[in-house]
Amino acid sequence: MNIHPLAIVSEKAKIGENVKIGPFTIIYDNVQIEDNVTIEGYCEIGVANQLSEGQLLIIGQHSHIRSHSIFYEGSVFGEKLITGHRVTVREKTIAGKNLQIGTLSDIQGHCTIGDYVRFHSNVHIGQDSRIGNFVWIFPYVVLTNDPHPPSNTLKGVTVEDYAVIATMTVVLPGITIAKGTLVGAHSCVNRNTEAEMVYVGSPAKKICATGGIRLQDGSNEQAYPWVNHFNRGYPDAVIQEWKRGEHGLTGGQQE
Amino acid sequence: MNIHPLAIVSEKAKIGENVKIGPFTIIYDNVQIEDNVTIEGYCEIGVANQLSEGQLLIIGQHSHIRSHSIFYEGSVFGEKLITGHRVTVREKTIAGKNLQIGTLSDIQGHCTIGDYVRFHSNVHIGQDSRIGNFVWIFPYVVLTNDPHPPSNTLKGVTVEDYAVIATMTVVLPGITIAKGTLVGAHSCVNRNTEAEMVYVGSPAKKICATGGIRLQDGSNEQAYPWVNHFNRGYPDAVIQEWKRGEHGLTGGQQE
Amino acid sequence: MNIHPLAIVSEKAKIGENVKIGPFTIIYDNVQIEDNVTIEGYCEIGVANQLSEGQLLIIGQHSHIRSHSIFYEGSVFGEKLITGHRVTVREKTIAGKNLQIGTLSDIQGHCTIGDYVRFHSNVHIGQDSRIGNFVWIFPYVVLTNDPHPPSNTLKGVTVEDYAVIATMTVVLPGITIAKGTLVGAHSCVNRNTEAEMVYVGSPAKKICATGGIRLQDGSNEQAYPWVNHFNRGYPDAVIQEWKRGEHGLTGGQQE
Repeated sequence: MNIHPLAIVSEKAKIGENVKIGPFTIIYDNVQIEDNVTIEGYCEIGVANQLSEGQLLIIGQHSHIRSHSIFYEGSVFGEKLITGHRVTVREKTIAGKNLQIGTLSDIQGHCTIGDYVRFHSNVHIGQDSRIGNFVWIFPYVVLTNDPHPPSNTLKGVTVEDYAVIATMTVVLPGITIAKGTLVGAHSCVNRNTEAEMVYVGSPAKKICATGGIRLQDGSNEQAYPWVNHFNRGYPDAVIQEWKRGEHGLTGGQQE
Repeated sequence: MNIHPLAIVSEKAKIGENVKIGPFTIIYDNVQIEDNVTIEGYCEIGVANQLSEGQLLIIGQHSHIRSHSIFYEGSVFGEKLITGHRVTVREKTIAGKNLQIGTLSDIQGHCTIGDYVRFHSNVHIGQDSRIGNFVWIFPYVVLTNDPHPPSNTLKGVTVEDYAVIATMTVVLPGITIAKGTLVGAHSCVNRNTEAEMVYVGSPAKKICATGGIRLQDGSNEQAYPWVNHFNRGYPDAVIQEWKRGEHGLTGGQQE
Repeated sequence: MNIHPLAIVSEKAKIGENVKIGPFTIIYDNVQIEDNVTIEGYCEIGVANQLSEGQLLIIGQHSHIRSHSIFYEGSVFGEKLITGHRVTVREKTIAGKNLQIGTLSDIQGHCTIGDYVRFHSNVHIGQDSRIGNFVWIFPYVVLTNDPHPPSNTLKGVTVEDYAVIATMTVVLPGITIAKGTLVGAHSCVNRNTEAEMVYVGSPAKKICATGGIRLQDGSNEQAYPWVNHFNRGYPDAVIQEWKRGEHGLTGGQQE
């Protein structure tokens, strides 16, 4: 362990091997940090909260939480969580492995998140969101959940595998963003989408199949399915699966 | 008093009974914290600023300021202020009781705010905003104030009692959001609204009376006035007033 | 030097005369802070990062960095940088003098920024952005860079001198906002603009010449070029240049 002398670490916290904790960081009681995790400075890990019902916060091995981030107790993160700075994560979110959460993002809790999900900076994931695997959500996107605010009705958003939601888009309560959908920037989605179609506008309208978009890198090849040309940060085993077509994506065209 | 040994508290600050101050928090000189207030860690309370003209920051009794928040001197908050994390509040804002300010919200100062107002996460309240009682403002809403930026002309937004502004909406300078108005998500409001009407779009257009929206909880009852079905967090006296119809709301229909 | 005893300052950092460093701030190794700079509390200055390729972070003289801000190594700022709170600036941004960066703003790195630029609160400047002189960018504006996310293609936005981008606008990848353009609030810009024209909407459409907008201060004079009526915070030499018409702006009308 490598705990900075100006960190405050509860004796009750369970802390694995080779964990690094930065200055001015607080680790509270109800926390399990697995091996080889780095937590930078000014973080609060395991903030107590009635809504957590006493459940542990678990941070999977080989994770890296950047400075000024706040995690409540009661959530579980698989291995290789990577965050930016000033991330806030409330209670009772269950996330798979290799999640990335960008700077200033706010996960409101009570969500399920699959494997290899990427939240860019400043996204707002409302309570009760259900997010699949290999999803991308870009800056200033908000997933909402109250169909007639304020109320006690909570209808979270569902985002299926490989979907991409571009910058400054709102997804309205209870909507499902289907597998491989692309939602363009500055849109407001008020209906369920079809798989591998492109939606743009406020309210968002279906424009074309994702396979109709061409790469602007000079190749003029199809930009979607994005897994055919983009694999930065994914493990080799996943990239090999993609090469074998195990993603099940076609670009929206019939095979 | 319960002041963490790693907090830095000015001897000039006036601090009431049963106040709790967390680690790495700084309380500056020109501050009055009333009884039974909790200020979590990493906060700065009473930041000095010329525009404050030397006025005190007053935090009312039974308030709770969450970690990483910054309050300038020269503002006044009634009792039971509750904030999320990383809130920023500039000088010369006068707020009533029971204000809630969500994580990452930024109140630019020189505002007036009534009682029982709810700002969700990441709202931006421009200078010179005037906000009534029982108002709800949802994430990524911006209240603007400069009709032709950049300029020296400041025309703040007015939001009247019981109005609701949904996610990622901009309200343009000098606009009044009337009593009980509902503005839908991802809208841009460029005209004054009528009381208890629903506005959506960019620019926002009048869609229907708020009473025309039905609850999606299976009851099919009117969703507005929202006070008829939602009262979480309000004191009994207020709920009783609402039951007696003292809110003066009709859902936009003639009585 | 005036370094708070609870600050952590690397002996390798180069620190000029009359520098003030607040409590709980960390100054890392690879940093050059010029004379008369104030860095408030809870900041991290010079965060190490592979993408910086070992380059110094340079903060020009007479700068003021407000609390909770994070600067990576490898960027260079001219004199009189002023920031709000909780600013994040990544590596390899080269900025001129007198830059202002508002609270919660996030500069993703690998950008060039001219002199006298003003970012208001909570702007997001994507990698590879190129910003001229005297530019104004207002809250919740996002400059994007990926034409078909996620991908390896990076096409930053260009914003030319004296342009103004109002609140909650997205500028799409590779777009140029021409000299003196005004983009209205809540817009999405998907085409290059013409100089000194006004664009509004999603997608943004050309409305009129900037000179067609009148001041709402009672004078009824042209609101643009804004340099004719607004000069708060600029040095006298610049104001004199503007008086001599050396900005080259006409309000979009033929001279």
